[in-house]
Amino acid sequence: MPASYAYLGPEGTFTEVALRTLPETATRELVPMVSVPAALDAVRGGEAEAAFVPIENSVEGGITTTLDELVAGEPLMIYREVLLSITFALLVRPGTKLSEIKTVTAHPAAQPQVRIWMKNNLPDVIWESAASNADGARLVQEGRYDAAFAGEFAAQKYGLEPLETGIHDAENAQTRFVLVGKPARPAAPTGADKTSVVVWQRDDHPGALLELLQEFAVRGVNLMLLQSRPTGEGIGNYCFAIDAEGHIADRRVGEALMGLKRRCPQVRFLGSYPRAEVDAQDVRAPGAGTSDGEFAAASDWLARCQDGRF
Amino acid sequence: MPASYAYLGPEGTFTEVALRTLPETATRELVPMVSVPAALDAVRGGEAEAAFVPIENSVEGGITTTLDELVAGEPLMIYREVLLSITFALLVRPGTKLSEIKTVTAHPAAQPQVRIWMKNNLPDVIWESAASNADGARLVQEGRYDAAFAGEFAAQKYGLEPLETGIHDAENAQTRFVLVGKPARPAAPTGADKTSVVVWQRDDHPGALLELLQEFAVRGVNLMLLQSRPTGEGIGNYCFAIDAEGHIADRRVGEALMGLKRRCPQVRFLGSYPRAEVDAQDVRAPGAGTSDGEFAAASDWLARCQDGRF
Amino acid sequence: MPASYAYLGPEGTFTEVALRTLPETATRELVPMVSVPAALDAVRGGEAEAAFVPIENSVEGGITTTLDELVAGEPLMIYREVLLSITFALLVRPGTKLSEIKTVTAHPAAQPQVRIWMKNNLPDVIWESAASNADGARLVQEGRYDAAFAGEFAAQKYGLEPLETGIHDAENAQTRFVLVGKPARPAAPTGADKTSVVVWQRDDHPGALLELLQEFAVRGVNLMLLQSRPTGEGIGNYCFAIDAEGHIADRRVGEALMGLKRRCPQVRFLGSYPRAEVDAQDVRAPGAGTSDGEFAAASDWLARCQDGRF
Amino acid sequence: MPASYAYLGPEGTFTEVALRTLPETATRELVPMVSVPAALDAVRGGEAEAAFVPIENSVEGGITTTLDELVAGEPLMIYREVLLSITFALLVRPGTKLSEIKTVTAHPAAQPQVRIWMKNNLPDVIWESAASNADGARLVQEGRYDAAFAGEFAAQKYGLEPLETGIHDAENAQTRFVLVGKPARPAAPTGADKTSVVVWQRDDHPGALLELLQEFAVRGVNLMLLQSRPTGEGIGNYCFAIDAEGHIADRRVGEALMGLKRRCPQVRFLGSYPRAEVDAQDVRAPGAGTSDGEFAAASDWLARCQDGRF
Repeated sequence: MPASYAYLGPEGTFTEVALRTLPETATRELVPMVSVPAALDAVRGGEAEAAFVPIENSVEGGITTTLDELVAGEPLMIYREVLLSITFALLVRPGTKLSEIKTVTAHPAAQPQVRIWMKNNLPDVIWESAASNADGARLVQEGRYDAAFAGEFAAQKYGLEPLETGIHDAENAQTRFVLVGKPARPAAPTGADKTSVVVWQRDDHPGALLELLQEFAVRGVNLMLLQSRPTGEGIGNYCFAIDAEGHIADRRVGEALMGLKRRCPQVRFLGSYPRAEVDAQDVRAPGAGTSDGEFAAASDWLARCQDGRF
Repeated sequence: MPASYAYLGPEGTFTEVALRTLPETATRELVPMVSVPAALDAVRGGEAEAAFVPIENSVEGGITTTLDELVAGEPLMIYREVLLSITFALLVRPGTKLSEIKTVTAHPAAQPQVRIWMKNNLPDVIWESAASNADGARLVQEGRYDAAFAGEFAAQKYGLEPLETGIHDAENAQTRFVLVGKPARPAAPTGADKTSVVVWQRDDHPGALLELLQEFAVRGVNLMLLQSRPTGEGIGNYCFAIDAEGHIADRRVGEALMGLKRRCPQVRFLGSYPRAEVDAQDVRAPGAGTSDGEFAAASDWLARCQDGRF
Repeated sequence: MPASYAYLGPEGTFTEVALRTLPETATRELVPMVSVPAALDAVRGGEAEAAFVPIENSVEGGITTTLDELVAGEPLMIYREVLLSITFALLVRPGTKLSEIKTVTAHPAAQPQVRIWMKNNLPDVIWESAASNADGARLVQEGRYDAAFAGEFAAQKYGLEPLETGIHDAENAQTRFVLVGKPARPAAPTGADKTSVVVWQRDDHPGALLELLQEFAVRGVNLMLLQSRPTGEGIGNYCFAIDAEGHIADRRVGEALMGLKRRCPQVRFLGSYPRAEVDAQDVRAPGAGTSDGEFAAASDWLARCQDGRF
Repeated sequence: MPASYAYLGPEGTFTEVALRTLPETATRELVPMVSVPAALDAVRGGEAEAAFVPIENSVEGGITTTLDELVAGEPLMIYREVLLSITFALLVRPGTKLSEIKTVTAHPAAQPQVRIWMKNNLPDVIWESAASNADGARLVQEGRYDAAFAGEFAAQKYGLEPLETGIHDAENAQTRFVLVGKPARPAAPTGADKTSVVVWQRDDHPGALLELLQEFAVRGVNLMLLQSRPTGEGIGNYCFAIDAEGHIADRRVGEALMGLKRRCPQVRFLGSYPRAEVDAQDVRAPGAGTSDGEFAAASDWLARCQDGRF
């Protein structure tokens, strides 16, 4: 298996920064790709061991390209997630002053995070879109624009200096990234895990979504994300990408997944993996009656009832 | 094991008639007992192989003595149920005319079924309670009363004749009887089975009953009876006797029972046995996604997901 | 209107003691009746202002005669409930010693509460049933039996003395009584109220009971009692007597009742009245979003939305 | 009020075609705007009576710009929806043959619908993105590219001819558009209506989504769309855009909305309006117990209960 990770490039973006928080990247070749589909196809085609791509953004929402690629095509699985706080630096050529800036650039996705800051600090400046934040920094280095919004980490690479750091219109702006590979046995439970799955609704069955959620609720499994996506078969036909608390090896999660499988025309398991955003207080103990021990005890009891021994 | 069935006596009552509908009674000694507890204790003590007792009456409701005996004490299991339509005959000494009847007798439980008929046909007659309908018939034979309400089958035994038959104030009056034995492996599923269970509610947990019912509903298991009984620990503390459609060997039923077991402080399995009242149209096929085949398929799928093979 | 209360007699029973805890009984004539139906018919017929009858017993369960009378026939309403702890005294003629007692009597309903005490203290004594506990005491007075189990309050009336008091096999044995009258406007909410209702299930609609309970749950209304009763139309046909926390004037309760009314073929309102068993900790504040203020605010909001003003 | 409708421009796109299906556009000035926010701000600022924008695409999913604009900022309301089937024509300068095409252009959103067709019919052609499909057609007219994917209706305007029509990779590709105005009284119910609303979840309340859906389900209101959007307060914080069957004037819908209002920290009503996609078989009659007549009857019954008249 090739010891390389593909990722959504180019180099010098938040994606690369997030990827480098994974310890094993020290021993992997990291290969920037031009798009999410290209990164995932590198895994499907066997050219990369895994792909690292954004899947959700706390300002803009689900990254639909990533979701749709995981929902359709040859199955892949999520093995890891990384959560990165997104704040921008204003990068300029050394010596440039704020008052000298007439033009700025960045990827359009940066706009929602810097709009208010710009209105307050650079009201008359002209905005030009760049293909990526890294590309914007390069264009400032080349002298085409006066300043670029990018991660502070990009400054050194392009010989720029951060005139301002920590720019973020929205508090708590974060992007969630996932490491995706070919299907294999999930890593063992850590006690703070997440399970991702896609379920298709039966046509013309009002109330179906409620029933899906009850499969989780009745077993005490909390949901962390529910994202509807069109199935491509016309308005009104949806599938749902769901993140649930827990690991497929947890019996409450396994039983809930089997419930989905029986109820839905199609279910795609996307993996069980350690939660990234874990503070001690975020990890809830399983609710009463939902621990593995209680599942095992109930299973033993059922066997005794079936044998008439009690 | 003693080849005898205890039953709620005396001889010549509806209970005996219902019991004799079971083919195996041809080769068993049938022993009348003075009370339901006495009949069940005969099983617990090993003097009888099984006990046959009424458990529910469509006019008067659950037979609380039977329920409470099954709920508490040494565990027993239900192996069979019998449903008997209850209509009365007016038994008299041969030759007695309706106009000559001044006194009638029967067990008090007969009253709700004959009250209107008496008002219309014997408005001025005096009613005296008997210890059982059979005992009432005996007292007519002895000349103490002029007529007795009893099953038509009691006429011959006491040398009486039925002056009127088919007396029933309520249409569809039925009594349900159960054959109870020591715990053992339930009979194999027949495709039209019933499972009985008693569950205790957690104290002070409003909404708990709803959650119990959802354990059944989410697995597509229909309920046929829900009867609350006091736990004896003060007003507001109840357990519930539940009859559910299906057999403990049906996976949807087994999973629902395990759900109850995890959720409740105590669950008592009372047996899975063939339904008595079965017409073809009463037997519903399992709902979508709840057959044993679908459970097995979902279980296979889960195993493949856990191995990363799909 | 006649200033009398009928009650389940005879005099000198727990029912009378419970009734006398109501302050207004000081100015009412209290009339003992031979049966619950007789007491309720006295109200229906206008001979009594109200009737006071037992409705639930923490040892034996619901008093089915009372439930069935309230469920059927001309509508009545519950205006008050009283909860009485049930402990027995052993009443004897003055001077009788425990060792001299050969026969005891009481109403059969007393048995479950004194059985263990008798086994331990009067193992060889003969039990004879009496028509009521008060009648048992009278029979002791007359010398027919040596001792009677009855309420301690009965001693004086019959010239007996309590040889032992506080006899109760089950801790927390209680009986709940209700004061029933003709339908009228319920008393105003007290903040700790209870609402009683009877609902009929639609035939052949599995899951119907779950749906009924959800009408309460979705509005945050807790249930305190659920008691099934046969409808008289054959095994498998039930109605449910339900006690819910709160008053019909509470908007969450009113909306839930309307939900039942729309969903069920028949609903009978049995009254909203102050809860008897109230400790401070038993009174839960309405759950989030279910207070009258929140209902009113939501109603205002809806009206603004319907007008396009927001 | 200005008699103009703003719409997402430029002219000659699917949006304009969809807009012109509304009869009243014959008497309105139709003003193309550069973006969805610009179109909606024209309404907020009073320059336009209404704005017409895409909100959902059966291939790509929810149009997040439109959703986010409706969710935040000064409230607006939806008054109409239009559903348009999306198929493309390949537009060329008159006389161009398929074999002569070396370059094609269109808006990037067109790609998912023409990708397979291109692979099969124009495998070696170069794709260049245009700012809009209409702009692509203009660039073909100017000779900059050889062909453009656009609606067939754009051919005449730019002096082009359709070399191929009906191009659509996905069957049933549709886009849903909405006509948005300032809040006002919704149009009267038509019997086939839709209600849109945005609800915010309480923080850290697992199971909250299930509870929201139950507010609809218990009143028999079907959901047609559920779309989660980030609230901008960090990963894990969502609001939900919901489309429900029925009109705010339908009592079942009104009561469900009030339930949401009580349960959620924030609810935004987005309007009740006629459904566009209506076939006769798509319009379900209200479920048992959920019609306005049944609501009115239950309300009357409650009033009678509160008065003690029944």
